[in-house]
Amino acid sequence: MKSFVEYSGETDFPIENLPYGVFTSAKNVNKHIGVAIGEWILDLNIIAHLFDGPLMKDKQNVFKEENLNAFMGLTKPHWIEARETLQKLLDKSNPTIQNDKDLRERAFVKQSEAQMHVPADIGDYTDFYSSIHHATNVGIMFRGKDNALLDNWKYLPVGYHGRSSSIVISGTPITRPLGQTLPVEGAAPHFGPCRLMDFELEMAAFVGGPPTKLGERVTAQEAGDRIFGFVLMNDWSARDIQKWEYIPLGPFTAKNLGTTISPWIVTIEALRPFVTDNFPQEPEPFPYLKHDDKFNFDIKLEVDITPEKTPVATTVCRSNYRYMYWTVKQQLAQQTVTGCNLRPGDLLGSGTISGETSDSFGSMLELAWKGTKPIRLLNGEERKFIQDGDTVTLRGYCENEGVKIGFGKCEGKLLPAVPLE
Amino acid sequence: MKSFVEYSGETDFPIENLPYGVFTSAKNVNKHIGVAIGEWILDLNIIAHLFDGPLMKDKQNVFKEENLNAFMGLTKPHWIEARETLQKLLDKSNPTIQNDKDLRERAFVKQSEAQMHVPADIGDYTDFYSSIHHATNVGIMFRGKDNALLDNWKYLPVGYHGRSSSIVISGTPITRPLGQTLPVEGAAPHFGPCRLMDFELEMAAFVGGPPTKLGERVTAQEAGDRIFGFVLMNDWSARDIQKWEYIPLGPFTAKNLGTTISPWIVTIEALRPFVTDNFPQEPEPFPYLKHDDKFNFDIKLEVDITPEKTPVATTVCRSNYRYMYWTVKQQLAQQTVTGCNLRPGDLLGSGTISGETSDSFGSMLELAWKGTKPIRLLNGEERKFIQDGDTVTLRGYCENEGVKIGFGKCEGKLLPAVPLE
Repeated sequence: MKSFVEYSGETDFPIENLPYGVFTSAKNVNKHIGVAIGEWILDLNIIAHLFDGPLMKDKQNVFKEENLNAFMGLTKPHWIEARETLQKLLDKSNPTIQNDKDLRERAFVKQSEAQMHVPADIGDYTDFYSSIHHATNVGIMFRGKDNALLDNWKYLPVGYHGRSSSIVISGTPITRPLGQTLPVEGAAPHFGPCRLMDFELEMAAFVGGPPTKLGERVTAQEAGDRIFGFVLMNDWSARDIQKWEYIPLGPFTAKNLGTTISPWIVTIEALRPFVTDNFPQEPEPFPYLKHDDKFNFDIKLEVDITPEKTPVATTVCRSNYRYMYWTVKQQLAQQTVTGCNLRPGDLLGSGTISGETSDSFGSMLELAWKGTKPIRLLNGEERKFIQDGDTVTLRGYCENEGVKIGFGKCEGKLLPAVPLE
Repeated sequence: MKSFVEYSGETDFPIENLPYGVFTSAKNVNKHIGVAIGEWILDLNIIAHLFDGPLMKDKQNVFKEENLNAFMGLTKPHWIEARETLQKLLDKSNPTIQNDKDLRERAFVKQSEAQMHVPADIGDYTDFYSSIHHATNVGIMFRGKDNALLDNWKYLPVGYHGRSSSIVISGTPITRPLGQTLPVEGAAPHFGPCRLMDFELEMAAFVGGPPTKLGERVTAQEAGDRIFGFVLMNDWSARDIQKWEYIPLGPFTAKNLGTTISPWIVTIEALRPFVTDNFPQEPEPFPYLKHDDKFNFDIKLEVDITPEKTPVATTVCRSNYRYMYWTVKQQLAQQTVTGCNLRPGDLLGSGTISGETSDSFGSMLELAWKGTKPIRLLNGEERKFIQDGDTVTLRGYCENEGVKIGFGKCEGKLLPAVPLE
């Protein structure tokens, strides 16, 4: 496949990818839906009329919306047809856009001249805890090696409801939060800036398909048609605040200070060539959590820390989405087993994705092992947790035989705490 | 104050109340905003042009919306002026609607002929755990008397993010969920219908005021202007599912099977005559959690259970909102202390509201003390938890010197579990 849009072999966004996002630009102050191709965005608002396949020709209006919810709310066959239409329109042999100078000029926007936005109205956001290495690491640190995994962990994908208002797009600064912590066990708590700010390397899936009704369930076997695509996610975590607040109802303000996602939703269809074996599961899951297809993906993940004063990026973690114990289909089945209804645009976070080796751990908590093994950065500085002014950048990509499917970046800079007035 | 609309002294909705809701009717298939008065709804969509005060006259369009978010997104002075306008328009001495037969016929809809809807687009829903008697009861049952309250409980309002998609309006049936439970400690879990279905008697506050920015905080002192009003809430809870799934990230599928709210939002202004002392707090809260005004309310609460076969209602609980240890202002301050942004229409659940005596406990878990003291219903049946076919009805009202400010009812029937196909 070759597009008339030129790009280097290094791009995250070849014609085989075509991720969806929402952008504005100096020319377009209203949010438009676009597709990334090389250095460009193809504005789907402008070319909505070209989706003339049997399924999409009556649904072109979904590309006139300010977010992707309506498009996500269609069905998998619609998404596949839309992708095929886009690949055809962008193909070197197709004159429709290529040779229409006026249309071409209106339809393409440089990514460097666009501002990206959270691509969907996220009705509800759930975060899971599905990497076995991460859960084991955290367990060892807090409960010792013999009790690392809690009893329920291998029976169900543990998860919790997150805060959707605080999901922000890559590039949005995050402010170090104030909160209560317990510096000395058994003493009174302290109020002040979080001291143990962390990132969490995650991916997150956008839910698609028509809304389900309360009381309906989606089994893992059925869940594949309801996963639209993935973004990178940094679940910023205030570890010391979390430790004091989370018993017995789970993380609350330690996580609602901001959650950063990457702007381009890479679709399941684009990821399909990179499907890989599911993680072996023992004990065997309950039937509602079982599916017979592969739904794990070989997505290479990296995290960079770039300090403010000497802005040299250090890659502190190299992990892979394939380390997920529970698949996203199983997560969705768990989410809905009690009858919880879904809306297109719901977001499911994977949980921190850690690999087996110490350089593949997906959080500072694990990388610096609770502060006992500081990470050395390329500029000579050390880190136990994230410092003010640090920029944390997540990247992800799949690669084989010269085709690279990338996610762009998921980036945020930590600003110093603002005192209470 | 006397209205030209006639109603009995027993009504929940005298002219001193004027709660807001969203309804449709046979005549109006589109959702309209209305105000309850006696047996009637005053349709604000029809009389939007009559809000001619200095603040509301340029904001009349908020009453043309399909939900209350835009009105909630204004400021407290707007809400107060709107209320004064409504009281003036409904007053016996005012001819504007009273004497305009055509307008009167279009503007009033019988509540019995209307269908109520969730009154706002709830961006995020948080549930707290702020009744000291409830937290103590649950603590005694699971950890013994000496460790009943966890260390953090008196330092911060413990809360967690809930599932907004599954919030439904009174009257919506709830299906007994399937899920994983651990009938025998240490054995393998079991999959099947929840056996310990419970209600939780709660109230919930709708957040108002303009959206805040990520990183902004709202202290308890400032939070009063951001509480629009209250509804009743039944936080249906699958106790056995919760017990197995909730470690370490909190309740998840045990709570996302459905949360019922009452349709009429009673405003803070209507509740003001019933303000009462805040609960004494020891230790003294941190400054961000302190406020110097009373913000607790004397709201009488009741729960009825009505079995399907012999439909006689038994009042199983009589509690009061005044038992809240943490005020809703403190809850909002906690929610935002780390910089979590708010959107008008966000919902804050109080947590189960239990009184001191055993007939005032706000859940079956406490009323039947973990199944050890079954509750006898008026029809002779016993209950340890909620049975299939039971209807659970929450009611709430304030009352003094002949004025009753009521909340209507918050009701749901439990349907039997539907097996997996």
